[in-house]
Amino acid sequence: MELLEFFLEAGNLKRLRRTGWLLRGIPNPESIADHSFRTALITLFLGEELRRKGIALDLERALKIALIHDLGEARITDIPFPAQRYFNKVEGERKALVEMVGSEYLALFDEYEQESTLEGKLVKFADRLEMLLQALEYEKSGFSGLEEFWKTIEKLKKNELYEYFGGLVEKLISLRP
Amino acid sequence: MELLEFFLEAGNLKRLRRTGWLLRGIPNPESIADHSFRTALITLFLGEELRRKGIALDLERALKIALIHDLGEARITDIPFPAQRYFNKVEGERKALVEMVGSEYLALFDEYEQESTLEGKLVKFADRLEMLLQALEYEKSGFSGLEEFWKTIEKLKKNELYEYFGGLVEKLISLRP
Amino acid sequence: MELLEFFLEAGNLKRLRRTGWLLRGIPNPESIADHSFRTALITLFLGEELRRKGIALDLERALKIALIHDLGEARITDIPFPAQRYFNKVEGERKALVEMVGSEYLALFDEYEQESTLEGKLVKFADRLEMLLQALEYEKSGFSGLEEFWKTIEKLKKNELYEYFGGLVEKLISLRP
Amino acid sequence: MELLEFFLEAGNLKRLRRTGWLLRGIPNPESIADHSFRTALITLFLGEELRRKGIALDLERALKIALIHDLGEARITDIPFPAQRYFNKVEGERKALVEMVGSEYLALFDEYEQESTLEGKLVKFADRLEMLLQALEYEKSGFSGLEEFWKTIEKLKKNELYEYFGGLVEKLISLRP
Amino acid sequence: MELLEFFLEAGNLKRLRRTGWLLRGIPNPESIADHSFRTALITLFLGEELRRKGIALDLERALKIALIHDLGEARITDIPFPAQRYFNKVEGERKALVEMVGSEYLALFDEYEQESTLEGKLVKFADRLEMLLQALEYEKSGFSGLEEFWKTIEKLKKNELYEYFGGLVEKLISLRP
Amino acid sequence: MELLEFFLEAGNLKRLRRTGWLLRGIPNPESIADHSFRTALITLFLGEELRRKGIALDLERALKIALIHDLGEARITDIPFPAQRYFNKVEGERKALVEMVGSEYLALFDEYEQESTLEGKLVKFADRLEMLLQALEYEKSGFSGLEEFWKTIEKLKKNELYEYFGGLVEKLISLRP
Repeated sequence: MELLEFFLEAGNLKRLRRTGWLLRGIPNPESIADHSFRTALITLFLGEELRRKGIALDLERALKIALIHDLGEARITDIPFPAQRYFNKVEGERKALVEMVGSEYLALFDEYEQESTLEGKLVKFADRLEMLLQALEYEKSGFSGLEEFWKTIEKLKKNELYEYFGGLVEKLISLRP
Repeated sequence: MELLEFFLEAGNLKRLRRTGWLLRGIPNPESIADHSFRTALITLFLGEELRRKGIALDLERALKIALIHDLGEARITDIPFPAQRYFNKVEGERKALVEMVGSEYLALFDEYEQESTLEGKLVKFADRLEMLLQALEYEKSGFSGLEEFWKTIEKLKKNELYEYFGGLVEKLISLRP
Repeated sequence: MELLEFFLEAGNLKRLRRTGWLLRGIPNPESIADHSFRTALITLFLGEELRRKGIALDLERALKIALIHDLGEARITDIPFPAQRYFNKVEGERKALVEMVGSEYLALFDEYEQESTLEGKLVKFADRLEMLLQALEYEKSGFSGLEEFWKTIEKLKKNELYEYFGGLVEKLISLRP
Repeated sequence: MELLEFFLEAGNLKRLRRTGWLLRGIPNPESIADHSFRTALITLFLGEELRRKGIALDLERALKIALIHDLGEARITDIPFPAQRYFNKVEGERKALVEMVGSEYLALFDEYEQESTLEGKLVKFADRLEMLLQALEYEKSGFSGLEEFWKTIEKLKKNELYEYFGGLVEKLISLRP
Repeated sequence: MELLEFFLEAGNLKRLRRTGWLLRGIPNPESIADHSFRTALITLFLGEELRRKGIALDLERALKIALIHDLGEARITDIPFPAQRYFNKVEGERKALVEMVGSEYLALFDEYEQESTLEGKLVKFADRLEMLLQALEYEKSGFSGLEEFWKTIEKLKKNELYEYFGGLVEKLISLRP
Repeated sequence: MELLEFFLEAGNLKRLRRTGWLLRGIPNPESIADHSFRTALITLFLGEELRRKGIALDLERALKIALIHDLGEARITDIPFPAQRYFNKVEGERKALVEMVGSEYLALFDEYEQESTLEGKLVKFADRLEMLLQALEYEKSGFSGLEEFWKTIEKLKKNELYEYFGGLVEKLISLRP
């Protein structure tokens, strides 16, 4: 796919809202691009923190993963959890990604999806943390009915990076209204 | 599925926007429920018109089809056309529909999807006409980039009801700004 | 009124928001079409349930009533309750309806407004139930100040269909957060 | 009506959108309060201009009229033009106004509605000019289908203040894209 | 600045949302014009009340102040409180105001900003009261996280008009959910 | 500043809309985070392209710059161009950035702002290209009045990366409706 065409298709991520919030009645919730941006930002700052702790990390690789981790959704949209019984979302995302930016990015996506490398784990951690931050922000603004999102904490705890950032997650939880 | 639970899940059709418009940059476009409502209304008034022309029609059946023709989207969302290369949308809709309201409605859905009965053809006609009306309304309000939607006219022309409502469609086209 | 022109005017029901929610500060609430859609859907499924219970019902008639019960609002808008001290809303709706779709639909509207037939009662029940479902959904999302809407329960209880669907209504109430 | 209660009811003017724009498909158009604000601002600056031209004017009175000219809509909403065949909007506004702020404001409203005083004429001029400014702004942003609003120019020309501000109106018209 | 150009620039106040609410996650909050309108309305009705209590007041002057008190924001936008550590917002507003409407309005703005005259104090009181009314309305609709706004009560209490309108403020506070 | 607190403040970038579009009447335009996301994505793909052309580039550095290039706006908001006569926006952004993430990021920001390194130039190019893509998308959707944004092309042409990506920019321009 040509670069210009690709950049324009990536614009869909600004136009598409995250369906998880939408289906819970939050008016005009964040876009997929909004989420991807903060996920990349978190990846950067947690990555720097890991380095400060002496952990070797390919930050360029991690940032690439963060930037492309939801790119397939520009084409397949943010198919919500209940719909995934009918469709293999990850397979759809993988195929769309390859068609959009080529197979060299598929390896990056798979690291993220399978949490198979430190960089992939970091972005998965950032992705989930970002969702919790957003859930917290919506709850602080008065929205409710978001309990299901908080179950993600269990998944965060199984990520080996929880060792380093567990305190941050706990602090986040303590801020729930 | 219990009735109350089903009515609540159907509420998703109010919260979900039609992705075709969304991806073309129309801010806060119509909901799936908005579209389904006018589709049913068109079905009613075109159906009455057919009867006046002496054509036997099971209007109750047609209205049922109209009301459930997008019901599966309450669960699978309005997966846009470019995403359908990766997913079998109709199969997903069929399965979701059965789980939501039981297999007796599947026959109705298939009549619509396959245009296999007069009632199914009528709702398919109404569904496409509704989309053209909305495209026209957006264009009259100043939105553009909707050319692709107008290709649907070719499909309308192949529907045997075009014989009766071709004039209406041509008039509609003549109103484009 | 010509069919095409009528379908276009009915599009106003997508553009107009239900003022009851709007005045209580719910941002970008449901459209009148959103409400009408689920009212028709409820009419269909409660109607089928009545039939299963052996109650004779003209479901085609009931669905017609449901689809046109708020049609006049495409022209007069959803004049809120406090404004009805100054205007006879129902009279306005009746006149607009006749001008839009002819007097044969007036009888249907009156059955609904006066709850004078089983079909009219069913749609009135569906209309009120739909509003309660929406109130519940808004409350589950965190919105408040909707107490007044719940007074509708008293009206539902007086509808003879409460005998059949009272359990559903009670279950709905039990879901309030 | 008590002041606090009145101020809260006036908040409806922020929540209600101007239906003229809404029905032409402008997403999330200006509120009634938005319009009232600029109408008052225009009244102030045109009023000062009149004074500079040596015309005696009770500016306090004019500003009061501007601030209350749509106040009744906080209760009756912005009933659009096509609905006014079924309801006497002005009578509704008058009654609502009296109940909200007392009959001393009715005289001010009538001056505006009947253009019976210089101050009333000024606010009517400002009210219409404000609408044209907004129409121009929407057209410059790309919205269309607003031709009907521009017919107001004929009414502006009949207002005796056109003598002073005709140049401004003509300049405004020349800016249409 | 020419009048027409000025009226068009003032239109920005309709397009710009109040950032205080925006940053706390309220979707599509009121515009600056919305706020300015009710501030002017409150100024009018509190001013009339003061007159009834025998207090001499230049109401025309007070209304002018109310209408222009946020006018500079049409150019500099509603720079939120945390940003004011980096910019002198009031200085920016003053300069923008002079360029937009001339230096004769600067004196009015300064009366408001410094609460140096009765009219300035009244508008400052109205401005703060308006914000509390809006905070109350958002809280009644279910939004939260607005505690900081209520600290304004302390500032209201120091305004000499609290003597007259303290009861109204206390009643307002008592309505918090 | 603590990481959690910082991530929450960065959430403002999702809530704040880009004022350039807002002031031209585009309803609910993109957020600052939306823009930052695609800027980072463009930086990644143009960066990879440069590498393929044999140009040495620190892509990690470039991605960091892209992710933080508008971070200060989380605190100072997107102060629009006409307001910058009254405030030194860049100085405000620099101070806010230092307080949010420390002075080590200031060097990165300055590279971008002053286009003093290849990485800084790349992000500046991506930032401007992103804005043009968005302008194109809005124009394709029917919005107008965006001519001023296209003047940015002149600035792009002066960026030394135009040598490599001039074709892409010209293609983009050719797509304007």
